[in-house]
Amino acid sequence: MAAASAPTAAAAAGHTRLAPPSAPSRQGVQLAQALLMRGPDGHDLIPSYLRVLVGDGLPRSSAPPKKVLVVGAGPAGLVTTLLLKRAGHAVTLVEANGNRAGGRIKTFRKGGHEGAAQPFADPRQYAEAGAMRIPESHRLVTALIAHLGLKRQKFRLVDENADGSRAQRTWIHVNGMRVRRGDYARAPQRVNRSFGVPKALWDVPSAKILSDALAPVRDEFSTVGSDGRRVDKPVEQLIAGWARVIERFGDWSMYRFLSEYAKLDAGTIDLIGCLENLTSRLPLSFLHSFLDAALINPDTAFWELSGGTATLPDALLEQVRDCVRFDRRVTRIEYWDPSRPHTDTPHVSAKGPHVWLDTVSEGRDGTPDREQFTADLAVITVPFSGLRHVQVAPLMSYGKRRAVTELHYDNATKVLLEFSRRWWEFSEADWKRELATIDADLYAAYQTGRASADGSLLGRHDSVTGEFLTAGQRTYYAAYRTVGRDQPGAVASLGGGSVSDNPNRFTFNPSHRVPGSPGGVVLASYTWADDAGRWDALDDDARYPHALAGLQAIYGQRIEVFYTGAGRTQSWARDPYAYGEASVLLPGQHTELFPDIATPEGPLHFAGDHTSLKPAWIEGALESAVRAALQVHTAPRPAAR
Amino acid sequence: MAAASAPTAAAAAGHTRLAPPSAPSRQGVQLAQALLMRGPDGHDLIPSYLRVLVGDGLPRSSAPPKKVLVVGAGPAGLVTTLLLKRAGHAVTLVEANGNRAGGRIKTFRKGGHEGAAQPFADPRQYAEAGAMRIPESHRLVTALIAHLGLKRQKFRLVDENADGSRAQRTWIHVNGMRVRRGDYARAPQRVNRSFGVPKALWDVPSAKILSDALAPVRDEFSTVGSDGRRVDKPVEQLIAGWARVIERFGDWSMYRFLSEYAKLDAGTIDLIGCLENLTSRLPLSFLHSFLDAALINPDTAFWELSGGTATLPDALLEQVRDCVRFDRRVTRIEYWDPSRPHTDTPHVSAKGPHVWLDTVSEGRDGTPDREQFTADLAVITVPFSGLRHVQVAPLMSYGKRRAVTELHYDNATKVLLEFSRRWWEFSEADWKRELATIDADLYAAYQTGRASADGSLLGRHDSVTGEFLTAGQRTYYAAYRTVGRDQPGAVASLGGGSVSDNPNRFTFNPSHRVPGSPGGVVLASYTWADDAGRWDALDDDARYPHALAGLQAIYGQRIEVFYTGAGRTQSWARDPYAYGEASVLLPGQHTELFPDIATPEGPLHFAGDHTSLKPAWIEGALESAVRAALQVHTAPRPAAR
Repeated sequence: MAAASAPTAAAAAGHTRLAPPSAPSRQGVQLAQALLMRGPDGHDLIPSYLRVLVGDGLPRSSAPPKKVLVVGAGPAGLVTTLLLKRAGHAVTLVEANGNRAGGRIKTFRKGGHEGAAQPFADPRQYAEAGAMRIPESHRLVTALIAHLGLKRQKFRLVDENADGSRAQRTWIHVNGMRVRRGDYARAPQRVNRSFGVPKALWDVPSAKILSDALAPVRDEFSTVGSDGRRVDKPVEQLIAGWARVIERFGDWSMYRFLSEYAKLDAGTIDLIGCLENLTSRLPLSFLHSFLDAALINPDTAFWELSGGTATLPDALLEQVRDCVRFDRRVTRIEYWDPSRPHTDTPHVSAKGPHVWLDTVSEGRDGTPDREQFTADLAVITVPFSGLRHVQVAPLMSYGKRRAVTELHYDNATKVLLEFSRRWWEFSEADWKRELATIDADLYAAYQTGRASADGSLLGRHDSVTGEFLTAGQRTYYAAYRTVGRDQPGAVASLGGGSVSDNPNRFTFNPSHRVPGSPGGVVLASYTWADDAGRWDALDDDARYPHALAGLQAIYGQRIEVFYTGAGRTQSWARDPYAYGEASVLLPGQHTELFPDIATPEGPLHFAGDHTSLKPAWIEGALESAVRAALQVHTAPRPAAR
Repeated sequence: MAAASAPTAAAAAGHTRLAPPSAPSRQGVQLAQALLMRGPDGHDLIPSYLRVLVGDGLPRSSAPPKKVLVVGAGPAGLVTTLLLKRAGHAVTLVEANGNRAGGRIKTFRKGGHEGAAQPFADPRQYAEAGAMRIPESHRLVTALIAHLGLKRQKFRLVDENADGSRAQRTWIHVNGMRVRRGDYARAPQRVNRSFGVPKALWDVPSAKILSDALAPVRDEFSTVGSDGRRVDKPVEQLIAGWARVIERFGDWSMYRFLSEYAKLDAGTIDLIGCLENLTSRLPLSFLHSFLDAALINPDTAFWELSGGTATLPDALLEQVRDCVRFDRRVTRIEYWDPSRPHTDTPHVSAKGPHVWLDTVSEGRDGTPDREQFTADLAVITVPFSGLRHVQVAPLMSYGKRRAVTELHYDNATKVLLEFSRRWWEFSEADWKRELATIDADLYAAYQTGRASADGSLLGRHDSVTGEFLTAGQRTYYAAYRTVGRDQPGAVASLGGGSVSDNPNRFTFNPSHRVPGSPGGVVLASYTWADDAGRWDALDDDARYPHALAGLQAIYGQRIEVFYTGAGRTQSWARDPYAYGEASVLLPGQHTELFPDIATPEGPLHFAGDHTSLKPAWIEGALESAVRAALQVHTAPRPAAR
């Protein structure tokens, strides 16, 4: 077994070259260019995209305006619609949701698009069901946020002190032990040994092991400067280096890379899988996790939007509201392409219309009804996981059909719990004071594991009104409890979160206080792939106490007194329009499927994050929207063919 | 790209050896023995297991009886309970379902355990939500069926004529073409070329391409006899050969095997993925699909149970009913193990009890309630995907916890549709006669694609009473319709089914008529992994018409007149106790996780199909049940430690 041998010095030191530098293949270069947003001659596409997105809009044209249908009101669909509308085209944006734009940008909030219900006990509270952090390096989305005048604030991936310095007092909770992140970074041996990591790596933190393993790959396109930071090579070498990486590892899984190339043993792979959130994606594409590892790490600056990420689609929707038809789920697309056989497409012809859509309303209030739309051109922005269930006639190209069928979408599930006080900011003195308002002995009782575990202490603090706490939640809580005598100290920090090997896996505390509210909503569990599917099968009454119990196992039993009983869950796999969090490609799909994903099919164009090489990121959706809007804008008017 | 080159002659001819024969590793040999059900000295364990299961039961013992808890009333739990009860132990079987035993054996039927509701319009009809076929080669389950006096009948994997000869008139429906299975086997070129298969393989059917690719692996442990059938090598070579296969490919995915070892190009991999049902499992373990490919092929004889597979758990339940507590979902397990630190296990001690379970009722009729159980020993048979959400104290071994966390469970979803007549048995003359009873012109209208597609013809035959046909179904049907002018001829056969690249993917017609009923239930869609998840996100009112439309795309529009409107869906990923179809291991998990799966943790023993190397098969569950019952029966009484 490759995975059973110890890591080699070469792999650990990061000096192994992939292969002698050679001329990369055309396909490798094209994928590298797409990844880096470079034109065929290597020039940076982003400045011209920025001009379209936040500058003068699409180029002026003397051609007559076109009638365009855009399918899906996520960020890609909204921006495509906005750009085409401003350029004078007649655009209709068709959205399946009855009352919400934004796609996988979704904020649980009062007065949001989830109907009248208030999601949390404190009406000021909100929390993210989907996109929650925006990397500083994403130039399109950060520019759009500024352009729209939206308020942004720092997203704290790592917990901080009040003065903005790193606190790293949140927890690593694995194999029955609990170690603060800062302590683990300084002295990883106890945790590492609990995974059976070989002696040579006992004193290397998991993030460093992973980064060392990835270093030879990064060396292909970047160099380490004197300050220890990586700097991209000059553009020609950058593209060639990425092309070599794509060629060498395009059909590898992350598991294969770690075991066979980095020669890590099973224990070490388990350590970094658990702590660096790779386990559930080990069988998936190396490239996907490699790209994410470059982005999601403590050195990346992230932003979040004040009031919730949904303020971004809100602002976009306001400008295209007259174009949007909600509650229209597309079930069938007919399109005219003279190069394809047309036998069962009665609604389209050479004379036009060239695109015809059938839709059905959700009919949640009764029998669904249908509506049909026609256009010259269409931009399909819905995930391929959803498009799979739409009939398209005539058949699209083999490559496109294969991509629609096979593109892998991953699960992701978030479980959010509301607390009436921000206990994660508490010092021990704060805990003593607040628990004393309930019972003079309670602080000590929690410290010694003597506090009742029957659910009677749930929401016992005066600040909890209790109307969300059901008897069912109390019973499940008591039955699931993980309470022990080992009660940890306060974290007293802002933002960041913990990692556990319990089902909660990754937790995040709010990066900021919500103005006027003494409480906060904790992302008690953020899981992917297999980890996510298991939360999805629980009922709400079981899920929330269970998520609370997992959070207590990390932060201590006492947090329960502030639990309001209000939880929210988002399972993207179960979402009837998303069918998954995002396209997370399988080994080989970057080279075998990706080249066909964005190619137009006659008058049908394609946008959405899955058509970019930044799936799951708003940036990828925006790249695709600008690209598709340019395509449609400059396409010859189909009726003139 | 490895996947881009043409197949080599060596791989196609099947003569490449894996490696020079060498002494396989101890772990490889142990896994091979577990797979082949061989003892350490190579002897066949099945005869002794058969004696326990259907002969004299567990060996006589003068030791005092033990108090045993069995968790989970699937086949493993039922049989473990039965064997231990007969041997005189005091057994309680705890099951989370309120009203059903059988686990992933589940038959939709009237008076079954799904409550009072009648699943289909004809009360005599039934259909399988789970296990549906039993291989003749599975010696334990076939013996148990005979022992219990259950009636079995042939399961027809391939459709047959009335005289039992192969018909192969069902369809391969891919890339916009429809070819009968028999025609494809004789002349595969048109279909193969539609996938871009290279010229050398144009005339080789997909099953043969796959079988040729796997041949060098099979050559390790078997030889091809003069009749063309494979025969196992003598036992020593058999075990050594399997051990080599496990060592060489244990951490390979099926995708890697096909692209890198068999050197098949992307188009050919897509062909066999689509037709041989491998696509959705390409990133998963090579070994899993390799084993299934050996089992599920037209040369295997399969059985089904008359009245449904649930007649097997019915018969077992009858014998242990006094032991069973339904509606008890286990949420916490405490156990006593003197070698582990005990700090938070107040309910167990050296004196006993050694096992304590907390459970919660489903509380679907109100507030859930709790009940606790104690015992000397326990046998945990629930899937690890479910056990992941059970608190276990003290911590189990690292290896077991890792297996519980990481063992991959696959999705599987079945969509079943009822028809009032068995149209798949119809000849064209039958179609003419039956359609004429609706409208004299209807047969011709369907033939020429002129029949209405607005849903008005759904269930129009007199034999359909219509009370299951909702207005919502009619609207969705019309919006999803795939009806075209290309209407295929009758299949006129029994059993078997079709394969399509539409979302239905695999379909199965009933192998037998249900006595007294003129209709039948078709498995309109059987999907795995990503293919399954996409059906799960649809509402019933959308799912059934959509499944019908997919079936019509294969068999023609006219089948709609017999659709009763009654459908049933089973999504095993969404089942709140199964959390998946079965453990389908990831690359590397056979060697890294499997050895720890069945190891006892103090007084906790483990059974279930996932503890065998036949996951998803009843046989694996029975192997594990006999093994666990023997372990518990012969274990020293824990109190005596």
